Amino acid sequence: MRPDPADPDAFRRDAHRLVDWMADYLAGVSKRPVWAQVEPGDIRAALPSEPPEHPEPFDAVLTDLDDLVMPGVTHWQHPGWFAYFPSNTSPPAILAEMVAAVLGQQGMLWKTGPAVTEVESHVLDWMVDLLGLPATWRVDSGVGGGVIQASASDATHAALVAARRRAAQERGASLVDCVAYVSAQAHSSVDKGANVAGYGHVRLIDVGDDQEQRPDALRQAIEADLAAGLVPTFVCSAVGTTGTGAVDPVRAIGEIAREWGLWHHVDAAWAGPFMMCEELRHHQDGLELVDSYVANAHKVIFTGMECTLFWVADRRPLLDAMSILPPYLRNEATESGSVVDYRDWHVALGRRFRALKLWFVLRMFGAHGIRDRLREYIRLATELSDRVDRHPSLERVAPTSFPLVSFRHTAGDDATRAMIAGIETAPDVAVTPSELGGRPFLRISIGQLTTTEQHVDHLWQLIRDQAASAAPD
Amino acid sequence: MRPDPADPDAFRRDAHRLVDWMADYLAGVSKRPVWAQVEPGDIRAALPSEPPEHPEPFDAVLTDLDDLVMPGVTHWQHPGWFAYFPSNTSPPAILAEMVAAVLGQQGMLWKTGPAVTEVESHVLDWMVDLLGLPATWRVDSGVGGGVIQASASDATHAALVAARRRAAQERGASLVDCVAYVSAQAHSSVDKGANVAGYGHVRLIDVGDDQEQRPDALRQAIEADLAAGLVPTFVCSAVGTTGTGAVDPVRAIGEIAREWGLWHHVDAAWAGPFMMCEELRHHQDGLELVDSYVANAHKVIFTGMECTLFWVADRRPLLDAMSILPPYLRNEATESGSVVDYRDWHVALGRRFRALKLWFVLRMFGAHGIRDRLREYIRLATELSDRVDRHPSLERVAPTSFPLVSFRHTAGDDATRAMIAGIETAPDVAVTPSELGGRPFLRISIGQLTTTEQHVDHLWQLIRDQAASAAPD
Repeated sequence: MRPDPADPDAFRRDAHRLVDWMADYLAGVSKRPVWAQVEPGDIRAALPSEPPEHPEPFDAVLTDLDDLVMPGVTHWQHPGWFAYFPSNTSPPAILAEMVAAVLGQQGMLWKTGPAVTEVESHVLDWMVDLLGLPATWRVDSGVGGGVIQASASDATHAALVAARRRAAQERGASLVDCVAYVSAQAHSSVDKGANVAGYGHVRLIDVGDDQEQRPDALRQAIEADLAAGLVPTFVCSAVGTTGTGAVDPVRAIGEIAREWGLWHHVDAAWAGPFMMCEELRHHQDGLELVDSYVANAHKVIFTGMECTLFWVADRRPLLDAMSILPPYLRNEATESGSVVDYRDWHVALGRRFRALKLWFVLRMFGAHGIRDRLREYIRLATELSDRVDRHPSLERVAPTSFPLVSFRHTAGDDATRAMIAGIETAPDVAVTPSELGGRPFLRISIGQLTTTEQHVDHLWQLIRDQAASAAPD
Repeated sequence: MRPDPADPDAFRRDAHRLVDWMADYLAGVSKRPVWAQVEPGDIRAALPSEPPEHPEPFDAVLTDLDDLVMPGVTHWQHPGWFAYFPSNTSPPAILAEMVAAVLGQQGMLWKTGPAVTEVESHVLDWMVDLLGLPATWRVDSGVGGGVIQASASDATHAALVAARRRAAQERGASLVDCVAYVSAQAHSSVDKGANVAGYGHVRLIDVGDDQEQRPDALRQAIEADLAAGLVPTFVCSAVGTTGTGAVDPVRAIGEIAREWGLWHHVDAAWAGPFMMCEELRHHQDGLELVDSYVANAHKVIFTGMECTLFWVADRRPLLDAMSILPPYLRNEATESGSVVDYRDWHVALGRRFRALKLWFVLRMFGAHGIRDRLREYIRLATELSDRVDRHPSLERVAPTSFPLVSFRHTAGDDATRAMIAGIETAPDVAVTPSELGGRPFLRISIGQLTTTEQHVDHLWQLIRDQAASAAPD
């Protein structure tokens, strides 16, 4: 008899088999090379050119997964992952994804997914407390509120659209005159988001010695634009830039934003979760002068993609920009005004049960367990920074406020490039080469779930060896 | 000893236990009431107000999932789901989500996820063939290409942004003058997307007797806008409107779009997958006059959310609008020009391994197996339409080109409302009341994975009973 792909019993059998595959993957990922071992086109060439016409058993798919797909997987869950930023999943998050997958929720409205909606509001309110955010940002405060967005880029784009809307309503701004300001070191998503949102102008603001946005340069840019008849609309403070982990002065930027009526967005996509540790919160001092804030739970809160936490201090401009209610979505709960309908908080209408993984992770790690790990990453990065500082041939290019260590070879750019190239030949670590002011540097991000002191020691050994052979004395 | 939430062995044990929970859910979902059985606030009230500080075992979380969360779940995977459109998952998709969850991929660049990227390009090229789309839309043609977006709303928004970009480049259009055109019956995402993308104007075009966009009304609106000095930029043809499943004349609209240089987007979010059946492709005749096209695999291709298939006939305007390359993302593969970097195809930078579920579903159902099910939904909807047409107290308000049946009571609006209210008291079906021209009607969508003739017969029994008691002779 032909297998029925919709049969729950077949699913039970296949899924048990797959669980062992999954646990084996987690147990063995550290033994794989971190980067995928394929050349462009290899995977497509291995797949049949014609689509499958007839049903195949799960065994056949699992075999092809192992043979054809796995060689093309870059292992973000490897303990030697020091590249970009971490994008962590974890067993609790995987369990939650399994539940979310089988429930197949579509929580566009409270009515179509009360649990999707209320668990999301609830865990985001928990996170307000855990990150030391203003209490008025809680959904249940009725003023601001949090929502899970697909990515930080989507969240920043939503903030830009809400800001544009507010500027149009309050100041009659035309989009072509709207200006967005962001540190020259900030994430590309701000620049991209402003372009996508149709801003007429984006200004990249100069940074100081620590790669932080300079408030005086911001003020100067705003004044020049005002003099030219433009409408300064949006400014982003980066708490932990992607380039070097720099921290913009949130309070000083917030004061300027208030003075001229700009929307003030904080991009803490990576560093935000570290605010679970009270001793780091001085980096975000000034949140009462902030209109929106983004932090990715799928980086160091171990939830897996896509779990971007986004808050607005006042939800009205966001809802004004994103609300729409066609007749087929009308319902009693919405009309009562007593529920949150998250479709009005982002571009997408449909939405999965994404909050489940944050709930599982918070329960199974406990806030305490997450904080312990975050502090360990900070400790490991501080130690690596100290080693770099003590090394005669290495120099850091930026402070290490969060677990990102950026440095170069003192013998010049060629030596830095040679050192990086040498490190990149190691199969068991992944790092990111970058550039600052046209000069290369190496960017080491610490925060993969299974990374321990031993992995960082191994990396340091590689760095030391390659620094030595890059520019022999 | 305290449990380690990152331990693969603990995961193995917990996940096996969860698989039985999942299979039991699938086997038993038909016995649950379709709609969630909670009032606004119930779930939040059941959750502790303080975030969890200490780690808890999976058992405790699973117990709370059952006791606190499940009562708030609306069961989109119930065979009595006739509401909105279906949002189907299936065992193959769930298995793929499990794999995707454990691999924790972040495929922003080819380099960071070669398998994420190439499997996605490959299955989208398969879908070009399976849906009868133009061959130049294949990624490997080098001209157009397909990408998975999070939602149809995101895809339509991306099309609007690309269109805006092309109009600015080719015609020097200022955003404030850009006009988007869409049928008054089309999905709210077009209107919302145009607002989010900053279009100065959105025109809702009149529909004909079958609720299809009228090309003469479109032409008239374009001519009026041109006369007023505006820039007609974007027009959407809906193939299967959300309201009543109406089909806009793609070719006629495409010809007008070509004449005036508008971007022509086809919203086939729901009906697109039915094009796997050749006999239905006449509904999308004229695709050579189309610039972009969206179809949701997570509706009737059973992949689960979020699996929106989006194609552009020419990828340059989209990439021009969405590309950005900061130094920390530079890499050899990107610079070689031989790879696709999907971060340039949407707003988000990060991306999960979403293509895996489409690959699993196509393999385990086979195209043939999917087509069989789509044809069965068409047959069931046609039969229901015929029953409505033969019933003396019921009248359809729109044709049934795809499995959506829209009708009302002949005794007037109060009778229609009473009939709908009566049907809505049944625990084992979900339907959607809507409105057309200010008058209520009932909207029955057929296409849940496990829906069979027996479930539609039961629904028909309910309709007949409630039609009778709504307006007794």
